[in-house]
Amino acid sequence: MPTKGSAKSPYRGLVISLSLLLVAFVLWFSTQLAAAAQWPQGTPLDLSSPFTSKKNIIMMVTDGTGPASINMARSYRQYRDNLNYDDLLELDKHFIGSSRTRSNSSLITDSAAGATVFSCGLKTYNGAIAVDPLKNPRGTILEALKLKGYKTGLVVTTSITDATPAAFNSHVDYRFMQSLIANQQLGFNTTLGSMTDLMIGGGRCFYLPGNSVGGCRDDNRNLIEEAQKLGFNVATSKKEFDSWQLGQNVSLPMLSLLAYYNIPYDLDRDEEKYPSLEEETITALNVLSNSTRDSNQGFFLMVEGSRIDHAGHQNDPAAQVREVLAYDKAFKAVIDFADSSDVPTYIVSTSDHETGGLDVGRQITKSYPDYLWKPDVLDNATHSGEYLTQRVHEFAASTKDAGQLTNFIEKQIFEFGLGIYDYTFKDVQKAIEYKESLELGNYLNEMVSHRAQVGWSTHGHTAVDVNIYAHSNTEEGQQLLHKYLLGNHENVEIGQFWQTLCDVNLDDITHKLRGTVHNVDVEAAEEHSESLYGHEMGSVEW
Amino acid sequence: MPTKGSAKSPYRGLVISLSLLLVAFVLWFSTQLAAAAQWPQGTPLDLSSPFTSKKNIIMMVTDGTGPASINMARSYRQYRDNLNYDDLLELDKHFIGSSRTRSNSSLITDSAAGATVFSCGLKTYNGAIAVDPLKNPRGTILEALKLKGYKTGLVVTTSITDATPAAFNSHVDYRFMQSLIANQQLGFNTTLGSMTDLMIGGGRCFYLPGNSVGGCRDDNRNLIEEAQKLGFNVATSKKEFDSWQLGQNVSLPMLSLLAYYNIPYDLDRDEEKYPSLEEETITALNVLSNSTRDSNQGFFLMVEGSRIDHAGHQNDPAAQVREVLAYDKAFKAVIDFADSSDVPTYIVSTSDHETGGLDVGRQITKSYPDYLWKPDVLDNATHSGEYLTQRVHEFAASTKDAGQLTNFIEKQIFEFGLGIYDYTFKDVQKAIEYKESLELGNYLNEMVSHRAQVGWSTHGHTAVDVNIYAHSNTEEGQQLLHKYLLGNHENVEIGQFWQTLCDVNLDDITHKLRGTVHNVDVEAAEEHSESLYGHEMGSVEW
Repeated sequence: MPTKGSAKSPYRGLVISLSLLLVAFVLWFSTQLAAAAQWPQGTPLDLSSPFTSKKNIIMMVTDGTGPASINMARSYRQYRDNLNYDDLLELDKHFIGSSRTRSNSSLITDSAAGATVFSCGLKTYNGAIAVDPLKNPRGTILEALKLKGYKTGLVVTTSITDATPAAFNSHVDYRFMQSLIANQQLGFNTTLGSMTDLMIGGGRCFYLPGNSVGGCRDDNRNLIEEAQKLGFNVATSKKEFDSWQLGQNVSLPMLSLLAYYNIPYDLDRDEEKYPSLEEETITALNVLSNSTRDSNQGFFLMVEGSRIDHAGHQNDPAAQVREVLAYDKAFKAVIDFADSSDVPTYIVSTSDHETGGLDVGRQITKSYPDYLWKPDVLDNATHSGEYLTQRVHEFAASTKDAGQLTNFIEKQIFEFGLGIYDYTFKDVQKAIEYKESLELGNYLNEMVSHRAQVGWSTHGHTAVDVNIYAHSNTEEGQQLLHKYLLGNHENVEIGQFWQTLCDVNLDDITHKLRGTVHNVDVEAAEEHSESLYGHEMGSVEW
Repeated sequence: MPTKGSAKSPYRGLVISLSLLLVAFVLWFSTQLAAAAQWPQGTPLDLSSPFTSKKNIIMMVTDGTGPASINMARSYRQYRDNLNYDDLLELDKHFIGSSRTRSNSSLITDSAAGATVFSCGLKTYNGAIAVDPLKNPRGTILEALKLKGYKTGLVVTTSITDATPAAFNSHVDYRFMQSLIANQQLGFNTTLGSMTDLMIGGGRCFYLPGNSVGGCRDDNRNLIEEAQKLGFNVATSKKEFDSWQLGQNVSLPMLSLLAYYNIPYDLDRDEEKYPSLEEETITALNVLSNSTRDSNQGFFLMVEGSRIDHAGHQNDPAAQVREVLAYDKAFKAVIDFADSSDVPTYIVSTSDHETGGLDVGRQITKSYPDYLWKPDVLDNATHSGEYLTQRVHEFAASTKDAGQLTNFIEKQIFEFGLGIYDYTFKDVQKAIEYKESLELGNYLNEMVSHRAQVGWSTHGHTAVDVNIYAHSNTEEGQQLLHKYLLGNHENVEIGQFWQTLCDVNLDDITHKLRGTVHNVDVEAAEEHSESLYGHEMGSVEW
């Protein structure tokens, strides 16, 4: 029944509506603001959409790179380019946390267990390639995403069969089973078949017959030819690689193994013969993004600065700062790619462990040390100890003239190669003594390290926490990365983050992997691997 | 003039009000939500209230502590207490960034320049105590807050006149001018007068007459007595300290110098004679919070784990892990205090630099190393190298019997002290050779380091970035800490953060400091300082 006030009902309704709207809005607002404000403390956000929508995943690994390596490369670059002390690496701008690196079997991990945490989200024993502590093959994020429709790729500067890349697309009990790793990388000996659309790096050696020049397989299969038959576009030279025009002129699947084993250190790299890690990475980004343009799924790419680790093993600071800077350029290319992409892209860069026990600061006097170190010494070196050692080996093999060898060591190795002019008679004697030995590399690197006042504690690995860097091109992505990776984390959390983000259950993949050949005659494989030490694959395998 | 609708005006007004309110709310909401959501990317937040309201500031310093020290202490504790590998230090839970530590004069800082960045937000030369590169005294955050009405305190485990605490409440050209530092700490020789309400630590030596037992001033003033006359409550023994009942039974100002120089390492500490850093810290928190309860201003407290650095200088890993854990307990006490306080409290813990070039992992074989290190070796040690060295010095001075000395070294030093039973004849010979030398400490520490497979590169400092940990008891505070300190930062940004947060202009303080005596006869002061090396202040000054 109409009341006195019924004539006012249109306004009254509006008032009620507005009031309700306001109340609802205030309530909703409170929830939203609280959620947005609280995430640093770990309160769950409602961010379900990123888990199911199209995205690109880029896992980047600085192998063997601890906090000191980043510090040394940053200061070296500031010195070299005369930059301010607050001029940073691209990495520095994306620093968000640190990772505790111990493996299942030791307080100090190797790269195999160290990569399996990223690929499987699982701690395992040193030497294990994507198998658990009981040697069961375990599904990897690369495999899960491939089966979900992603395109997949691996980019490295060492052998593609080395521990880090291998842990994403193969499953073997010990990392030295590199012929079996190569088989699996092309889809042989695995129940899943071919999982990897793109591989760029070194390691042609383990794809070539053991009885061929440069081949080091434990059988006489030629996996390069087999890959071609499987439809892979193949490049084994810089010329062929260049014909791909940074990935704009090639399609998946593709395989580019540009060295028998390692691509040379960036400090030694002949640009005519080998691409940079940045070029490799841009190529991969172009091909993978082009080939997923019209797909509902994006791509998974793993990029490794593999040889930062090698410079650590060899205790070569001059090579290492260049390796870190080459990686930093590749990292920048990935950041730039993401920021110009429409597809939500997630980038995490971290290390598997530290190598060498690098200290940027070293006491070289009996008396109490001055507080300084000398980046100029690193800048003076024009080649790595590894490269110069090979030059001495070659020269010593080509001459019996002691005077010529002495002159070569003084002028070409010490002065031109290391940029060192204050060498001693003992230095020359030692270099001659080691003219046929790999010990020469250690001696040369120590000449540089000592003068730069840079210290090392081992040719192996150490336990120090390593840095985590992360970026996304969406705000939602940034929030997710911070929510999961800000602060100090166990290394497995990085692998587990990929699984959560991509909404995959690796147990399903593990189940599908039953029957995969993950083992060969262990003793024979180890013996074969050791027989390759100093093989023409170019340099020491770590 | 009334219109047709004028009768509806009460509702109409309400509608308009509600609409405006809703619009305003939506606008405000958008700003707030966007700001709250965006802060990880660095978008400024409107968080002005924390800058002016009452708050407590707690700056904590792990002197000489790099990432490896944290890692070693964490794993040591896990080993000792049989904990899971994800059982963390309290510090680990608050890790948010890293700090680049170079000074104005070198790529490697000392603790004086390293503390001046925190106190003044300014890079200066190695050795400088709160003076700029031109040796002008510069205002510190402690002074600015004192003048604003805060209560102020310093808590350390080394001399209160050492570089880190000194840089907060004194201004001298070189850190070795410790008698002048002590004067200024009580308000003498500074135009500002007394700025510090509470000091707890070691360093009685520089407060006592040079001609007295245990005194090492360059004059014969007795600053302990002078402090009492100024109204300070003074404690120089554990008994006196205990009578304060962790700060519940004492009022400001107060001065507690519990050792002539250093408080012993936590590993050596006699609980009857010396409080822990945690007890010192809780005492300070209680007094400072009680005395500001009814004030509009809170307190400023600096807490330093001073001797982590000393263990680094001495390359003593067994002492260092205990120092880090003692600090971690003090840090936990500070976190707990904040979380139970009504006053917004801001805690930042970081290091000035790394010391020793510590590597958790070390090659002790010529052949390629195993990937491991041995925390059990650190657990077996019951005393520091510093402590055991003094025991040998004392024993050697008390006997001429070579057999007794040998027996003492074997049983008391190696077996009981270091927990080492596989010592060699050479070890015994060396210890006897060094029976009157501080070199003995280095030798003993190397026996432990070698067996634990822990490496060091120097007895000085190194350049590696150090960790930043932070916490606030308010959500606003957490956001501010993340906004300013998340990621990789130049060390000065930490000092600058305090200035921004507390809304102080240190230039005003600098202006007021004109006329402050910041220099004495440099050569005489340096000579006096060097003459104290090995003085009964107990142990080496770093």
